[in-house]
Amino acid sequence: MLAVRIHQYGKRDVLSLDEIPVPEIGPDELLVKVVATSINPVDWKVREGYLKEMIPHPLPLTLGWDLSGVVTAVGADVAGWQAGDAVFSRPDLKRNGTYAEYIAVRAVECARKPATVSHAEAASLPLAGITAWEALVDAARVQPGQRVLVHAGSGGVGSLAIQIARAFGATVIATTSGRNRALVESLGADQVIDYTTTRFTEAVEPVDVVFDTLGGQVQEDSWAILRPGGTLVSIVSPPDQERARALGVNGAFVFIGPNAPVLEKLAGMVDGGRLRPIVGAEFALRDIAKAHALSESGRAVGKIVLYAGTP
Amino acid sequence: MLAVRIHQYGKRDVLSLDEIPVPEIGPDELLVKVVATSINPVDWKVREGYLKEMIPHPLPLTLGWDLSGVVTAVGADVAGWQAGDAVFSRPDLKRNGTYAEYIAVRAVECARKPATVSHAEAASLPLAGITAWEALVDAARVQPGQRVLVHAGSGGVGSLAIQIARAFGATVIATTSGRNRALVESLGADQVIDYTTTRFTEAVEPVDVVFDTLGGQVQEDSWAILRPGGTLVSIVSPPDQERARALGVNGAFVFIGPNAPVLEKLAGMVDGGRLRPIVGAEFALRDIAKAHALSESGRAVGKIVLYAGTP
Repeated sequence: MLAVRIHQYGKRDVLSLDEIPVPEIGPDELLVKVVATSINPVDWKVREGYLKEMIPHPLPLTLGWDLSGVVTAVGADVAGWQAGDAVFSRPDLKRNGTYAEYIAVRAVECARKPATVSHAEAASLPLAGITAWEALVDAARVQPGQRVLVHAGSGGVGSLAIQIARAFGATVIATTSGRNRALVESLGADQVIDYTTTRFTEAVEPVDVVFDTLGGQVQEDSWAILRPGGTLVSIVSPPDQERARALGVNGAFVFIGPNAPVLEKLAGMVDGGRLRPIVGAEFALRDIAKAHALSESGRAVGKIVLYAGTP
Repeated sequence: MLAVRIHQYGKRDVLSLDEIPVPEIGPDELLVKVVATSINPVDWKVREGYLKEMIPHPLPLTLGWDLSGVVTAVGADVAGWQAGDAVFSRPDLKRNGTYAEYIAVRAVECARKPATVSHAEAASLPLAGITAWEALVDAARVQPGQRVLVHAGSGGVGSLAIQIARAFGATVIATTSGRNRALVESLGADQVIDYTTTRFTEAVEPVDVVFDTLGGQVQEDSWAILRPGGTLVSIVSPPDQERARALGVNGAFVFIGPNAPVLEKLAGMVDGGRLRPIVGAEFALRDIAKAHALSESGRAVGKIVLYAGTP
């Protein structure tokens, strides 16, 4: 089968389209024919070696940790799945990933694919959707009537975070560049800040939750607009806990693992018309370097999907 | 390139996956690399030869009249398109279709693909979406506050028709089988009739518009629930005009052609979050017989998408 692997850490030129054997599955695993996968920033952070201490990988390593596809074989100890089932997953970052025609994935990391969208849309959801859910629902515990600021509202995580916050009854403020204003409004944002012309610190009334998808100065500036008792939740860098205590607010960091129960919730929201996957760009597996370049640019709208095969 | 063609009219066994040359383009045409196409009932009606008098085709014929893909070459007289553009289209039924890796399509039949969904979702829209739009907007002239009955609300055309009628301010009643009730409600239907347990003639107050996607007895029974001056619009068989006059209502039949301006409107609705493509099943080009079987069964939910290639 074809797989995009790295044999060493580095820039995009280490991405290698290799012909390798279809993986064997263990007793608790499914063999899945991958129809689509999607790009997450963690993919090129792994590629560059930034995470090699935190997540040790033997090389060569197949990148990619989102998939939607079809089960083709079922491990001996697995119940509830059979060949032909449509599945989506955010598999374990510590193992070989999804930029491949097939993957061996633990059954407990898989959920039924949403029934009303394509594999391409389904593949855009797992990692970004679990991230947004765990940050807003589990870490920040967003409540009806709360005010939530989502940074980078047109991005892969932000576009889902706006909709999840709305589904939980929050008022949502989102930052984006002006060209994506209409999209962000269509996702349900009540207030949209064009960060190219307006400082959010000057335009946003105090909020209960800041969802930080950017880190750095954006995280630094975000403290000032939190209400007392509010929560700054980041998916980029751990907020300063001393700072949080001094301000009487909470700082939370989410770096998540596989979470099939959340995938089931996300699938239900998609099929119920309450969560709209945003697929802003698509590539073939062989064009992985272009796909990484777009992701690294920070200018992608929604998710970048890779087509790995056919159903 | 690969293309699914018929060399004679007939059952599913006439579907042939052939290796044929990439088509040449004329001066007013685009060459498009097809990423996805979708199945419409007209595909297997053409295959069976039902339409051979109305739409003469030289054989062999490539089937399929929906596409989303990427422009790879531009005819000499074409303005406004360039290689690399993402495009979606419902090309001319009288020419070779879209079950193929490439198609030569007239530029005037093409529109920009919606920017926030995948090629798979985009390919589900053109023929069904133009059909629903022309029936409701152009033929029935649906108005805010009107009551619209959509038959087969979970189908490829019905699922879009519900949303278009709602977008024009109508109250929507839809029929479906019970297992699809939640989907049809999520599309915005105000009243859902489970046709497996309830006769719509006994459960629906008079309506201004009936959208007939089924014909036969359903069309026959639909006259009785039209308000005076109302419209029965069918996409299956022309309503009896004498009957319509006798009842003081209108009967309209829509059998549509390519319509790029409507495609642009549909793309805007999708990107604005006002139209949700429903992709209920997906197949590879080589599994075309299975895809036709599902379409012919009348039990598909939303649209059936075929993957023809990669972006």
